[in-house]
Amino acid sequence: MPLPYRWLTSLMMRYNGSSILIDCGEGTQIAMREKGWSAHDIDIICFTHYHADHISGLPGMLLNMGNSDRTEELLMIGPKGLGRVVSGLRVIAPELPFPIRCVEIEGPEQTFSFEGFRLKAFKVQHSVLCYGYTMEVDRAGRFDPERARAAGIPLKCWNPLQKGEMVEMDGQVYTPDLVMGPPRKGLKVTYCTDTRPTDSITENAAGSDLLILEGMYGDPQEQDKARQKKHMTMQEAAGIASAAGVPELWLTHFGPAMGRPDQYLEEIRRIFPKTVIPRDGRSTELNFTEE
Amino acid sequence: MPLPYRWLTSLMMRYNGSSILIDCGEGTQIAMREKGWSAHDIDIICFTHYHADHISGLPGMLLNMGNSDRTEELLMIGPKGLGRVVSGLRVIAPELPFPIRCVEIEGPEQTFSFEGFRLKAFKVQHSVLCYGYTMEVDRAGRFDPERARAAGIPLKCWNPLQKGEMVEMDGQVYTPDLVMGPPRKGLKVTYCTDTRPTDSITENAAGSDLLILEGMYGDPQEQDKARQKKHMTMQEAAGIASAAGVPELWLTHFGPAMGRPDQYLEEIRRIFPKTVIPRDGRSTELNFTEE
Repeated sequence: MPLPYRWLTSLMMRYNGSSILIDCGEGTQIAMREKGWSAHDIDIICFTHYHADHISGLPGMLLNMGNSDRTEELLMIGPKGLGRVVSGLRVIAPELPFPIRCVEIEGPEQTFSFEGFRLKAFKVQHSVLCYGYTMEVDRAGRFDPERARAAGIPLKCWNPLQKGEMVEMDGQVYTPDLVMGPPRKGLKVTYCTDTRPTDSITENAAGSDLLILEGMYGDPQEQDKARQKKHMTMQEAAGIASAAGVPELWLTHFGPAMGRPDQYLEEIRRIFPKTVIPRDGRSTELNFTEE
Repeated sequence: MPLPYRWLTSLMMRYNGSSILIDCGEGTQIAMREKGWSAHDIDIICFTHYHADHISGLPGMLLNMGNSDRTEELLMIGPKGLGRVVSGLRVIAPELPFPIRCVEIEGPEQTFSFEGFRLKAFKVQHSVLCYGYTMEVDRAGRFDPERARAAGIPLKCWNPLQKGEMVEMDGQVYTPDLVMGPPRKGLKVTYCTDTRPTDSITENAAGSDLLILEGMYGDPQEQDKARQKKHMTMQEAAGIASAAGVPELWLTHFGPAMGRPDQYLEEIRRIFPKTVIPRDGRSTELNFTEE
């Protein structure tokens, strides 16, 4: 339930001109505008599941994108039923100036590759079919000019090879592996809400630069309720972060009955010190760590 | 389009334990909560039309009502298509602990009577079928104890007669008109948005204690645009208020391109001095004017 000072959970990721939104509850378009971001530029909308607090903002978001004269196709990814849910909601957004492509996730996990990054959906455990997501940005190895020179590769081939492209010149074929070192560490973000703790979360969270998990309950007394309602507690989220060995955990999706989520912070940090209880609108910039 | 500091247009009227909501765009449940009002208590939701900015908040509102363990029936009133639109949106709110009754307005105007008040829908002129609404609270005449005494009506009959009920006692039938003066002025509010100016608005607005109209455009240069898009300008709204002779006009539903709606206030007040350009969350209390 959205509260005046705490809206619904949603994540926007932006990389190299691409914008990916995960979940779009009521008010997401307003929150996004408060950040100064434009709906026009969203390339992909992913859904964890179809409970209203994760998708009720979709019709307004689509109309907002339509009003900004977008014509580029919008890709939507979500659990089985996406087409049905979107066509239900589009009863109030029937006419849009851009096409929509709905892709329903197959099986327990599926990876979607895009130019420069990958999205992976992995099944979690909620009261309805629900997926977590990782976004991974790959980073090529370093270009080695010594090797390029030693291999006698013409200078005008260097640039395409650096970009990972194969080059043919004067009857000679040059491949990137001749001049590139091993791939360097890229970036990885994992986002997962509305689920019991699962191995799939810990496994997919491993290696993430940022892990975002729900913190629906904070009071240890609510452990049973978390189990019943198929949510997790802050303590459980911190346990996952610790097991996955991530550098930072953000908690979100706080229960509406929770007055001040940060009242539990001290306790949670005993389980996982790098826990953050963000306020609405939190954002960060992740950068490649190696030279 | 909702803006961070200016959400979508909606009106909540509360009278004698009844709550009536007109329109329910994205974020309405949050705005309502900011006012300290509860979704639980809404008895009737009316829709002017089904453009998303007037109904996109419905699924969240219904779930919010469901979360608060409401079991009483909810009545919804709107133009033809209500059932279809609501069932589309309920793809994300399929299970609710209370029944919903959808009533589609018939013809150019229709009055709905409730205990102590009436709602009247009247057709206006937008790009889709759209209605304005008036809410009227009736007020009985004054009870005249002299007449009751002169007519020899037993004291224990006075109270039901005052409430407008017929009483039979000792074989004698007493009717309220024996002891009640003529009906006194009640209360009337008229709400109308997303329309060109129409005679139906002026006629229905007459006698209102408060008139609420859209002020989509303020710049006189946008008159043509208003005509094309089937909206009205602030100037036109003020003209209607003046013709209807209402004591106060509130403007709402400002175009998203309008930076500061009150920049036009001075000009609009030259047409209709009692114009108000409210900020989000504006409320007022209307009271019976006669003793």
